[in-house]
Amino acid sequence: MRRRLFLTGLAAGALAKVSTASAQGTPLPSWAEGKVRNSILDFVTRTTTPGSRDWVPVLERIACFDNDGTLWTEQPMYFQVMFAMDRVRAMAAQNPQWREQEPFKWVLTDDRDALGRIGERGILQIMAATHAGQTTEQFRATVLDWLATARHPRFGRPYTDLVYQPMLELLALLRVHQFKTYIVSGGGIDFMRPWTERIYGIPPEQVVGSSGMTRWSLKIDGTPELLREAAVEFVDDGPGKPVGIDRFIGRRPVFTFGNSDGDQQMLEWTAAGAGPRFMGLVHHTDAVREYAYDRDSPVGRLDTAWNEALRRGWTVVDMKADWKVIYPFELR
Amino acid sequence: MRRRLFLTGLAAGALAKVSTASAQGTPLPSWAEGKVRNSILDFVTRTTTPGSRDWVPVLERIACFDNDGTLWTEQPMYFQVMFAMDRVRAMAAQNPQWREQEPFKWVLTDDRDALGRIGERGILQIMAATHAGQTTEQFRATVLDWLATARHPRFGRPYTDLVYQPMLELLALLRVHQFKTYIVSGGGIDFMRPWTERIYGIPPEQVVGSSGMTRWSLKIDGTPELLREAAVEFVDDGPGKPVGIDRFIGRRPVFTFGNSDGDQQMLEWTAAGAGPRFMGLVHHTDAVREYAYDRDSPVGRLDTAWNEALRRGWTVVDMKADWKVIYPFELR
Repeated sequence: MRRRLFLTGLAAGALAKVSTASAQGTPLPSWAEGKVRNSILDFVTRTTTPGSRDWVPVLERIACFDNDGTLWTEQPMYFQVMFAMDRVRAMAAQNPQWREQEPFKWVLTDDRDALGRIGERGILQIMAATHAGQTTEQFRATVLDWLATARHPRFGRPYTDLVYQPMLELLALLRVHQFKTYIVSGGGIDFMRPWTERIYGIPPEQVVGSSGMTRWSLKIDGTPELLREAAVEFVDDGPGKPVGIDRFIGRRPVFTFGNSDGDQQMLEWTAAGAGPRFMGLVHHTDAVREYAYDRDSPVGRLDTAWNEALRRGWTVVDMKADWKVIYPFELR
Repeated sequence: MRRRLFLTGLAAGALAKVSTASAQGTPLPSWAEGKVRNSILDFVTRTTTPGSRDWVPVLERIACFDNDGTLWTEQPMYFQVMFAMDRVRAMAAQNPQWREQEPFKWVLTDDRDALGRIGERGILQIMAATHAGQTTEQFRATVLDWLATARHPRFGRPYTDLVYQPMLELLALLRVHQFKTYIVSGGGIDFMRPWTERIYGIPPEQVVGSSGMTRWSLKIDGTPELLREAAVEFVDDGPGKPVGIDRFIGRRPVFTFGNSDGDQQMLEWTAAGAGPRFMGLVHHTDAVREYAYDRDSPVGRLDTAWNEALRRGWTVVDMKADWKVIYPFELR
């Protein structure tokens, strides 16, 4: 019950603001006037105005967005890693061996030095231990319970409060112009799908992400269930993103937004199509309102993709200058 | 050019018939009056009439259809296997070793006895040899070229002429009632996607199927491409169908139609959801107009799923009795 109220309230809040903005006739109200906002508005106008030389048929209007760092915050760690660590704490009583076992004991003792050096292997161990062993429906409930209770360490708010208001407006603008909006994220598909519809207006079938294997199983009473296993099925990151787009969507996007080197191939794949294309990157430049990081960040590194964006004239959002508002709660 | 004309003409033909029927106000005109047609109309009315006890929210209206034997004919062999054999013939000059090599030489010498005993391993060899080694875009063109020129051995028509008119009407009826229609097929996802939109009105992103691995690659000039490899990625058949539905759609369907034991788990998964559900099977009973086969058929065997349908009261279409028209060309 709390879960439902929580999500309904949040989504209503975010979407109401977008609607109001649209009703007032000002598109992208949280975007500062200037080159970046104009590049978006110009693209949408060119591709959707009947008779325009750059008009794109409705069925081809596929827009793909990275999630972590593009639609919501990804610091101090990807929120899914925060979730996994909270799960380690919640599952510790059933797993007493974790008290002696790296990397689990680092989480349980809050050993920040060790966690700072945890590395990919350690994160994968924590992900496997916390993301497998449930049915798909149990895992969905676990994610929603976590979102209802967990709070971001810096902002003291639910993680889903930390979505970007300018991007909510952009998603809405694209949908008004009959673009189909997709998430294409390195994050777990089953971690995102329980809430993307209410928070972003993106239904589960328009979420592409990384996944573990699931297995069909019949309970003793004959009821079928899908069990989540500890094996990796697909990593939707870097070169995996165009592969995931091809597998799930089967069309090449015309509009793609990311924020890190993990989005580079997805942006290149978009750019290589014929006809008008929009490639965008969010550059995190606002340490006061959000975070500032790029070439040297362990999370969300923006280095080679940034070089390519500069060389090829892709749109790069300077968060500090281009976003008048960052989070929806600033408007409340 | 021929490819485009071919598909446009076909789609226009099929869809025009559906539209005319709707405009006349008779839903499912190619379905004989009776229990089966009523079970469909009743379900659609109950789930989509505001205020109905069984009303289903629009976003939950997910309808899944098997393809081979459910939306189009699958005899004398799955059409994708016919395609693969035609590809062996087309690629024989570049692969002279095939003249001495089983199972390829059976195809090249039209050795029907041997082909009748080819088995799954032989089919997989032919599939791997003919479905890999191209970019995704080259393969798409290969499929469309084949459809434009190949003819079904019994009907002498393009394979896409052999879609079921009653199912086209059902897909249209569901979409008018805001169901999202999906294909969930054991067939290759990339074999279906090039034409499902124009033939069935089902866009590529609503096609779930089996797949091989694809690999991101950069050409010497920096242009990215996706290369099709010979390794199997996912088999969307039997227990793979609910897994594929969960992975691609992320929601449980409320309406599912199949025709063989390979659809059993998808139907069980649908049936196990809460609220109103429709489970349907096509039983091929018409050897004169199409084919008649069930428990002993090597292709499209209908045995255990049929038992379960009878036991649980699922809808079973008797093709001969329930379909007044089978193929759209009968109406021309």
